[in-house]
Amino acid sequence: MKLYIIKIGGKVLDDPGMLRTLLDDFSRISGAKIMVHGGGKKADEISAKMGLVPQMIEGRRLTDAATLEVVTMVYAGLLNKQVVAQLQGFGCKAIGLSGADGNVLQAQKRPVKDIDYGFAGDLFYSSVNTELLEMLLKNGLSPILCPITHDKKGQLLNTNADTIASIVATSLAGLFEVHLIYCFEHGGVLEDPENAATVIPQITQKEYRQLKESGIVKNGMIPKLDNAFQAIAQGVASVRITRADALLNNKGTLLINS
Amino acid sequence: MKLYIIKIGGKVLDDPGMLRTLLDDFSRISGAKIMVHGGGKKADEISAKMGLVPQMIEGRRLTDAATLEVVTMVYAGLLNKQVVAQLQGFGCKAIGLSGADGNVLQAQKRPVKDIDYGFAGDLFYSSVNTELLEMLLKNGLSPILCPITHDKKGQLLNTNADTIASIVATSLAGLFEVHLIYCFEHGGVLEDPENAATVIPQITQKEYRQLKESGIVKNGMIPKLDNAFQAIAQGVASVRITRADALLNNKGTLLINS
Repeated sequence: MKLYIIKIGGKVLDDPGMLRTLLDDFSRISGAKIMVHGGGKKADEISAKMGLVPQMIEGRRLTDAATLEVVTMVYAGLLNKQVVAQLQGFGCKAIGLSGADGNVLQAQKRPVKDIDYGFAGDLFYSSVNTELLEMLLKNGLSPILCPITHDKKGQLLNTNADTIASIVATSLAGLFEVHLIYCFEHGGVLEDPENAATVIPQITQKEYRQLKESGIVKNGMIPKLDNAFQAIAQGVASVRITRADALLNNKGTLLINS
Repeated sequence: MKLYIIKIGGKVLDDPGMLRTLLDDFSRISGAKIMVHGGGKKADEISAKMGLVPQMIEGRRLTDAATLEVVTMVYAGLLNKQVVAQLQGFGCKAIGLSGADGNVLQAQKRPVKDIDYGFAGDLFYSSVNTELLEMLLKNGLSPILCPITHDKKGQLLNTNADTIASIVATSLAGLFEVHLIYCFEHGGVLEDPENAATVIPQITQKEYRQLKESGIVKNGMIPKLDNAFQAIAQGVASVRITRADALLNNKGTLLINS
C-alpha cells in the first residue's frame, strides 16, 4: 500500500496562495497520506509582539521556556489548526497532532554539552508511534504533524520538521511503500541558486557528495538532503524535492539511492 | 460500556497544583474517558502582552479575528498540548483535538442579528463526529477536546466548553453509559456561595427550578446547570458537579432527572 508523506516548509506556510494550492493538491491524493509542517515567520511575529527577544547561540535559536510556549502556541495551535481546517474544507479527513498526542512522536531533550539548546527535542530510533499512525491511516484519516514533540514525562519539546518527516518515513517503510516529498519555495535542487530554470532532475548518492564538494549544495539544503538520503537508504521508496504549488506535477528533484 | 466525560473549567487550568491532581486522577479512571477543557486567564495574558484590547458587547467577549488567533493558539495549542503532555506523563493515552481535527466538532458561525459575536461557533444536533470518538476510544485513546471548533469550510470558531461537554455526552449516550462530571474550583453547587461547607448533595429538575427562582443558583451557574440538565434529559446516565481535585471521591452535587 502506497503512503505519501508531504513535508512543507515555513515559507510555504507564510504564502497563503501557495499554501492553498498545496492543501488543495494534498486533498486530491487518494489513499494514505501524512503531512509534516514546519514553522515560518508567525512565531517570530508573535514573539516580537510579546516583547520577547530571540536567544541565539552560534546562529541557532535557543528554545528557552518562553520560546517553547510561543512555538507550541503557533505550531501546534494556530498553524496546525488553520492547515487542518482548510484541509477539512477541501474534504480531506485531516487530523492535526503534536508529538504528545497519542504519543505519536517521543523525543529526548537534547543533552547539554558545550551548548544548552534548551527545550530542543532529539528523535531516536523508536520515536515514532507507528501503530497509532497505521490505525489512523487505515481509518481513512490523514495525520498532520507539527514540529512539537514531548519526552513522555510531561515536557513538550521543539523538534526540526525535516527530521520528523524523515524519521516518520523510515519508521513506516516496513508497513507501506513510502513516497516522501519535500515541498518548498523552489522548483527543486538548483544548479544555480539564482536561476529557477536550473532544477537538477535527479541526484544519486554519489552525485550528492560531488555537489556538496563543489559547493553547489550548501547551507540549509545540506541537512535537508542528508535527511532525505538517509530516508532512502533506510527503505523509503522515493524522495522528491519540489515546489509546494507543483505537488501533483511529478517534477522537481528525485533522489536516487545509488 | 461506561464512558466518563470530564469537563474542566478555566480556573482549574490556572491552578497548576489542582490541575496536576485532576490529571493524575483522570489517568486513573479505567476504561473509556474523554476530557473537555475550557480557557482560563492565559488567553487574556497573551492578548494583553500582544497589545490587543478585548472587544466586549453587553458583557460578552467578541471573538474578532485577532481574538480568534489568540484563543486558537492558547486553547488548541498551549493548554491542550500541556494537558496532553502531562497526561502522557501519567501513562494516559491522551490525544488532543480541536473540533477541526478529524472533523470531531462541526459548528456554525453564530448568525448576526442585533449583535455580531464574530467568530463564535454554535453547535447543532449533528455537530459531534461520534464515529471518530468511538473509534479512538475503542483503540484505548482518550480524546482531550478544547473549545475551538470549525465550520467544515475552512473557518475555525470559538465555542463554549460547557456546551461542548454537554453535546458530546448526549451524542454518545446511545453508544455508551455516559457519566458527565463538571470539575471546577468549588465542591459542588453551594447553598451559600460564601460557605464551602454548604454543598447541595443532589438536585432534581424540580428543585433546580426552585433554586433558580430563589436566586441561590445564579449567574454563570445557570447556563452550566441548564446544559447539565439538558444532558440527563437526553439520555446521559449521570451528571455530577464537583471540585477538580476531588474527581475520584464521588462527592459534589449529583443532578437527578426528575
